[in-house]
Amino acid sequence: MIEPRVLKGFKDSLPENMIDKKNIIYKLESVFESYGFVPIDTPALEYTEILLGKGGGETDKQIYRFRDHGNRDVSLRYDLTVPLARFVSEHFNELTFPFKRYHIAPVWRGENTQKGRYREFYQCDFDILGSSSINADIDILLTIKSGFDAISAGDYVVNINHRKVLNGFLEKLGVKDKASDILRTVDKIYKIGADNVVKELVETHKIDSGITDSIIKFLNIEKAGKGRGIIGEEIFNAINDAGGAVGEDTLKYVDELETVFKTIAECGYLDRFSYNPAITRGLDYYTGIVFESFIKDAVEFGSVCSGGRYDNLAGLYSKNEVVGVGASFGLDRLLALMESKNLLSKKSAKTEILIFNMDNKFYPKYQKISSELRKENINAEVFLENKKIPQQFKYAEKKTIKYVLFAGENEINNDRYGLKNIVDGVEKKGLSIRDIIKELKG
Amino acid sequence: MIEPRVLKGFKDSLPENMIDKKNIIYKLESVFESYGFVPIDTPALEYTEILLGKGGGETDKQIYRFRDHGNRDVSLRYDLTVPLARFVSEHFNELTFPFKRYHIAPVWRGENTQKGRYREFYQCDFDILGSSSINADIDILLTIKSGFDAISAGDYVVNINHRKVLNGFLEKLGVKDKASDILRTVDKIYKIGADNVVKELVETHKIDSGITDSIIKFLNIEKAGKGRGIIGEEIFNAINDAGGAVGEDTLKYVDELETVFKTIAECGYLDRFSYNPAITRGLDYYTGIVFESFIKDAVEFGSVCSGGRYDNLAGLYSKNEVVGVGASFGLDRLLALMESKNLLSKKSAKTEILIFNMDNKFYPKYQKISSELRKENINAEVFLENKKIPQQFKYAEKKTIKYVLFAGENEINNDRYGLKNIVDGVEKKGLSIRDIIKELKG
Repeated sequence: MIEPRVLKGFKDSLPENMIDKKNIIYKLESVFESYGFVPIDTPALEYTEILLGKGGGETDKQIYRFRDHGNRDVSLRYDLTVPLARFVSEHFNELTFPFKRYHIAPVWRGENTQKGRYREFYQCDFDILGSSSINADIDILLTIKSGFDAISAGDYVVNINHRKVLNGFLEKLGVKDKASDILRTVDKIYKIGADNVVKELVETHKIDSGITDSIIKFLNIEKAGKGRGIIGEEIFNAINDAGGAVGEDTLKYVDELETVFKTIAECGYLDRFSYNPAITRGLDYYTGIVFESFIKDAVEFGSVCSGGRYDNLAGLYSKNEVVGVGASFGLDRLLALMESKNLLSKKSAKTEILIFNMDNKFYPKYQKISSELRKENINAEVFLENKKIPQQFKYAEKKTIKYVLFAGENEINNDRYGLKNIVDGVEKKGLSIRDIIKELKG
Repeated sequence: MIEPRVLKGFKDSLPENMIDKKNIIYKLESVFESYGFVPIDTPALEYTEILLGKGGGETDKQIYRFRDHGNRDVSLRYDLTVPLARFVSEHFNELTFPFKRYHIAPVWRGENTQKGRYREFYQCDFDILGSSSINADIDILLTIKSGFDAISAGDYVVNINHRKVLNGFLEKLGVKDKASDILRTVDKIYKIGADNVVKELVETHKIDSGITDSIIKFLNIEKAGKGRGIIGEEIFNAINDAGGAVGEDTLKYVDELETVFKTIAECGYLDRFSYNPAITRGLDYYTGIVFESFIKDAVEFGSVCSGGRYDNLAGLYSKNEVVGVGASFGLDRLLALMESKNLLSKKSAKTEILIFNMDNKFYPKYQKISSELRKENINAEVFLENKKIPQQFKYAEKKTIKYVLFAGENEINNDRYGLKNIVDGVEKKGLSIRDIIKELKG
């Protein structure tokens, strides 16, 4: 006999997990589609050359790589961004630009496992490719807002920054050559605090303390973005207050930020968004607007939806320059967060009513009743075995089914049935199928 | 530059394919859930030992197998049945039996590619485990019926047989020892015709021609199962007419068939099912009821939903005996069939209305209008770039969007808008947002 077990770092999804997970996925898909995003899929397995590109990073060590039957060097995808770059290059002439796509699918990384991290996990990405307009960034931000509203994981905030504004500010401060180090350090402000940021800037990166003062002052303008049409002015003031001054280029990006907050204000969503110059999101990839989102009473879970604007996504595979802006919901993180807040349904089935099998000779009739309920969009199942009633109750409870229907000889002869609500314990007798439909729908 | 390409035997799914595919999956999921089936998921990657078991078959050559980072011998799943067996063994005490599960997910086989066959494809399985009652078989058959109704791929028939009835018949004919060969030959009757079946039985398998006559006569009782409660009698008559006689054991299975058709008749679905003793479905696996389903005007695509009853699914991993009955919709085959019949939507987006960007300074207002439409469950997107109107029309057409909304300076000042239905060309002016919602919903 072979011991039934999954690989380390992998897991099965049982019904009570899958139902909540699918529910969230379905809600996000509906939101994406309501904004005009369209679904795509790409193979789990690709040429390693495609997935690793120039390679050399952490990914090389984590990727599941092997030789296939044709001795091709192949790998399992480790994210959905590289496959998107390959996809958009290969299908460039078949796509409609701006190309708004979403992709919800598993990826694989053979990294060291730790609590809540798996070697197989879902990514949930949505991007707009082929538009350099700030309108696209805004469209992504509004989609995030609607996504959070649909999921109902609690009060949230989307923190927005513009890396080019921050860069312009650093340039004016004369520390452009150290921008990388500064951004990476600044990104940690919520983890390590302002004092430690200053310490690291001064001690490790040899930034003058006058300049670190300006940076910290700039980073503290969190209140910005709270009023319509004032974001630009506030940022200017902050930059000036903080000891900098901006040039023509930076002005353009401040205008972009202003458009972001003007649109958000017009839609009435200002309470959901915040300008936060400390958000930088690493360095290699993002080139404009960046954002991170938090559930306010569960910030310890980290950002549950992040992203930003990037240049030239597909440069490795195509001469067509493809700019874009995108975001990703952290599905597993969201599920863990909602679990911790008791926000998951924990349903182990979607059945609404179980028809008891009280006498097996009536099984055809039970299926008939069941089919009538299903015609009214009520999820109904018949207990399949001829077992004692307590066992049938137990089945209903384990499957979190709210109602059970009784139909013995008398009930069937009179076409009037018994109905019990297991949750509140109320039992009714002599109901017609119509009555039962009303009871369940009302 | 790296040439963007997918591996041989793999393919990308573009939006116009994904939308129809997801649509069918969603419909089937809803049907499964309406019958009380619950979703599960298992890892794409498992220990090879688990997936191959004793091994030795075709699968060994087709499976994607390699050593992972921990030097474990791992493979990509090649079906969803073996993972289910492992899953049910591992989680036996956590599950509610009868366990009704569905699983829609990709599997991988490195087989030789041919038209319409890929190395990565979806399986769509649903099974009931832990019940030996014929009620479970019936529940699966009714689910198939509802599945076909939901998909709307055309008029269909589900052909049902009981292998134990057929075996009992062969036993009485004294050819039980050749049952394997006979069943495998008989299974080809629709491909090669009755004459060639007889020829193969006589020449290759050395069956007496008297016996082959009885078999062929028996196989021809396709009209059976067309009336309520007569299946048993018809089968008895057919078996007797065909020169056999049945014993106690076979009688029990004829009774099961009778219950099947009585229930189908009670639900009013007799026109969708047929008793067909020529359906055998190979030999190793199935032990009771077996079935295949065809779309009547597209039988050349073969069976699009098949399955049957099996014993001891999980014997390799567990001492718990797990009987079951299950079926599988051939998703890729169904899509190809529906494509050939022009039944796919071919939509390249689910957007219902595009708000034209007529003046970029109104972009915030456009998003506001869009958000109001989305609140009414209308999928609305704003054209993101400041481009000429013909280009915006082209975008709407390529994304198969039916309506476009015009809002220039005048429209916005008066809060009355222009609406064009691209499909019929009708354009209306001076509409309020309320009017537009009514127009789109009505």
